[in-house]
Amino acid sequence: MFLKLFKTDWINKLSPVQLILFFYCVAVIVSTCILAMPIAHKDGVNTSFIDILFIAVSAISVTGLSPISISETFNTLGYFLLAFIMQFGAVGVMAIGTSIWIILGKKIGLKERRLIMTDQNQTSFAGMVRLIKQIMYVILTIEFFGFIILSTYYLQYFPTTGEAVVNGFFSTISATTNAGFDITGNSLMMFKDDYFVQFITMLLIIFGAIGFPVLIEVKEYMFAREEIRKGLRFTLFTKVTTLTFFSLIVIGAIFIALFDAGNFFADKSWHEVLFYSLFQSVTTRSGGLSTMDVSQLTEQNHLFMSLLMFIGASPSSAGGGIRTTTFALVLIFIITFARGGASIRIFRREVYQEDLLKAVSVSLMALAFVFTSILIMSIMEPYPLSEILFEVTSAFGTVGLSLGITSELTTTSKVILMVLMFIGRVGIITFLFMFKNNKSSGKFHYPKERMIIG
Amino acid sequence: MFLKLFKTDWINKLSPVQLILFFYCVAVIVSTCILAMPIAHKDGVNTSFIDILFIAVSAISVTGLSPISISETFNTLGYFLLAFIMQFGAVGVMAIGTSIWIILGKKIGLKERRLIMTDQNQTSFAGMVRLIKQIMYVILTIEFFGFIILSTYYLQYFPTTGEAVVNGFFSTISATTNAGFDITGNSLMMFKDDYFVQFITMLLIIFGAIGFPVLIEVKEYMFAREEIRKGLRFTLFTKVTTLTFFSLIVIGAIFIALFDAGNFFADKSWHEVLFYSLFQSVTTRSGGLSTMDVSQLTEQNHLFMSLLMFIGASPSSAGGGIRTTTFALVLIFIITFARGGASIRIFRREVYQEDLLKAVSVSLMALAFVFTSILIMSIMEPYPLSEILFEVTSAFGTVGLSLGITSELTTTSKVILMVLMFIGRVGIITFLFMFKNNKSSGKFHYPKERMIIG
Ligand SMILES: [K+]
Ligand SMILES: [K+]
Repeated sequence: MFLKLFKTDWINKLSPVQLILFFYCVAVIVSTCILAMPIAHKDGVNTSFIDILFIAVSAISVTGLSPISISETFNTLGYFLLAFIMQFGAVGVMAIGTSIWIILGKKIGLKERRLIMTDQNQTSFAGMVRLIKQIMYVILTIEFFGFIILSTYYLQYFPTTGEAVVNGFFSTISATTNAGFDITGNSLMMFKDDYFVQFITMLLIIFGAIGFPVLIEVKEYMFAREEIRKGLRFTLFTKVTTLTFFSLIVIGAIFIALFDAGNFFADKSWHEVLFYSLFQSVTTRSGGLSTMDVSQLTEQNHLFMSLLMFIGASPSSAGGGIRTTTFALVLIFIITFARGGASIRIFRREVYQEDLLKAVSVSLMALAFVFTSILIMSIMEPYPLSEILFEVTSAFGTVGLSLGITSELTTTSKVILMVLMFIGRVGIITFLFMFKNNKSSGKFHYPKERMIIG
Repeated sequence: MFLKLFKTDWINKLSPVQLILFFYCVAVIVSTCILAMPIAHKDGVNTSFIDILFIAVSAISVTGLSPISISETFNTLGYFLLAFIMQFGAVGVMAIGTSIWIILGKKIGLKERRLIMTDQNQTSFAGMVRLIKQIMYVILTIEFFGFIILSTYYLQYFPTTGEAVVNGFFSTISATTNAGFDITGNSLMMFKDDYFVQFITMLLIIFGAIGFPVLIEVKEYMFAREEIRKGLRFTLFTKVTTLTFFSLIVIGAIFIALFDAGNFFADKSWHEVLFYSLFQSVTTRSGGLSTMDVSQLTEQNHLFMSLLMFIGASPSSAGGGIRTTTFALVLIFIITFARGGASIRIFRREVYQEDLLKAVSVSLMALAFVFTSILIMSIMEPYPLSEILFEVTSAFGTVGLSLGITSELTTTSKVILMVLMFIGRVGIITFLFMFKNNKSSGKFHYPKERMIIG
């Protein structure tokens, strides 16, 4: 089907970005059709079109927000179909498409390479095919081990081996792809005292959210021979995004614990506080699974978590938001300015001025999108501002945490959240270049090192 | 006293920005002492130190937020003292100080000139003394006519000529300086059907908030001889700030009317809707007076007005916020970026890249300040997020509108609001350069036209 589409003339006239958006739309439509099939539903379940569409967008954008209960709507076949759609969304329509071509042994031409380049935000043409292969290899490897560990371990929790395997499979995919859907009916709350499950799940979420380039660089480093390893250096991108990623997790956990010290955490032991706050901090990067009902937290924690979700995951990952690097570059930009314009070196490198400006633009536009969405939803909905903010940033960051209001929303608000999930997943820059060809400016070029934004 | 202070050594070692901040602090301390005098209070009134300090900061920063009722606390002497402090704050500590020196016939040296330059954000040394003279001349002229018109017109409202004069005097100063304090006990609500009072007050607020440079350019243009007038052109700054200023007022009024179409404005006639929404839109620029209880508006209107207040007034005006030019430059920056970095011409001029970056930095830092303040206050206070947001942006924009919670706040929150009023008034850039000498970067200099930011 893909090949046939490529042979038509009109599709060749689209810019790479327009093509990707076209494929995302096709993916959403196909997913909606798949998920609407009665054969995937539990007996006697009635669903509305908007809710199925919402779940399709949510799965393709690996957000995990859902207006209806997954476990009450879908049967085991539905679970597997949903898991497939999440996987598809996470690795990216183009990456999957390309890997299909690789599997079919087809030579990949320049046009298709440019396609993937845009989707994964890579700035070098070289090694693109290798990259996609590696993505699939890395993700499937992680998921394989996750699945083995979790489904074995789940045997003690579920009455039959079949149920343990289905749950192990679904929760591995859901965690690794950062989709955050659950078929338990209450996310990971049943494992709130099981630190092993939480630890494995956090690992899987981090693998999915830290960005494919980081995983691949780490893998290359780990499997390189001794003499080659010495010559290898991590890219500036990997260093910045990883530092930001883990800083956000640690700082996030500390403040989540502090903001609810007198409330939710008041009667908890130190290790409960540690795991609750750590897990909820990790999940705001993009995961969306949770070990507690987040609506029990204080309003200031919701506000703080909204900020964390707005920042989101790393670029070229399964997550959304403005991205960790964007956030880091905005901080660098502000520090640069406060120092009177003197350029800043991080890890002994300078960043492109163009990248700083990109990061700042992306953040400001994201703020405008989020603010406008909140404004419109506050007209449509009776809920307080903090709850709407939480749901909106959760959608934009493709996190999927919810204070429980998504199921009660009007259709207009659901459409707004779908648009936000879409923008959050494809990224502001891609979204903006939707309507035109992506021309680079050629204005701020200095001999510095490239960074990935958005 | 000023002269003596200048002769000490330590004060000469301060940078211009540090000096200005030093004078602001002195002004706040002196104002607090003045306002704390029992002779300025109504009989039997007990006030706490924090509340008097709050009013002093509020008056010097011409914000108008107050935790206690002005009319129930102060007597006529207190009103006059408060009006004097507002006037002092509005024109700027340094501008007033300089004009005293001008009156005394003293020659003004370079150090003092630089002082005023920083406070009024002027980028040219020439004509500084003339500027300050003009500021005083323009403001006092506006106030003179405002006072004559309002106090005469007020004769029909108040039982004695004395009361009409006192009210006319205070409300003229409060409107022109954009302080927004009232001695009626309920702002301008008693004039909610008197469109003449509202019109005059809006004019005075606009004169105070549109920026002194704009007023002076317009005045020069108006009083120039025919042949000279042809050669005069308005600066880019004047064009951009004026366009932004009035656009915000018009767009603000339209949306304020729309957001409450089904609520507050449901039973109002077209002219009531027009004047209510127009006045409330004008007042969010920085005025702070209001013709209605804004807490009656919907939450989405509070959210929208928070945005308007965050933007605030024009630079070098009596208002606060990030400033209209900053907002305009951020928009230009985003458009520039979305167009792939191609530079943008406005009014046939290019703006400095450095100014765009300044504007973006200021906005991001302001967002960080506001967000942090909201986060801390949401811990301290039981009020919903939207109300805290409103109060915080009102303080930062030195607007002074309130949903009524300021009087109920904890001391910590009052201190936060005081800091915000201070930052909002002196501007983020000044605030940031507080701790070091203001060195220009010398990095982004192109042959373009200068703009004023922050
Ligand atoms: K998610
Ligand atoms: K004010």
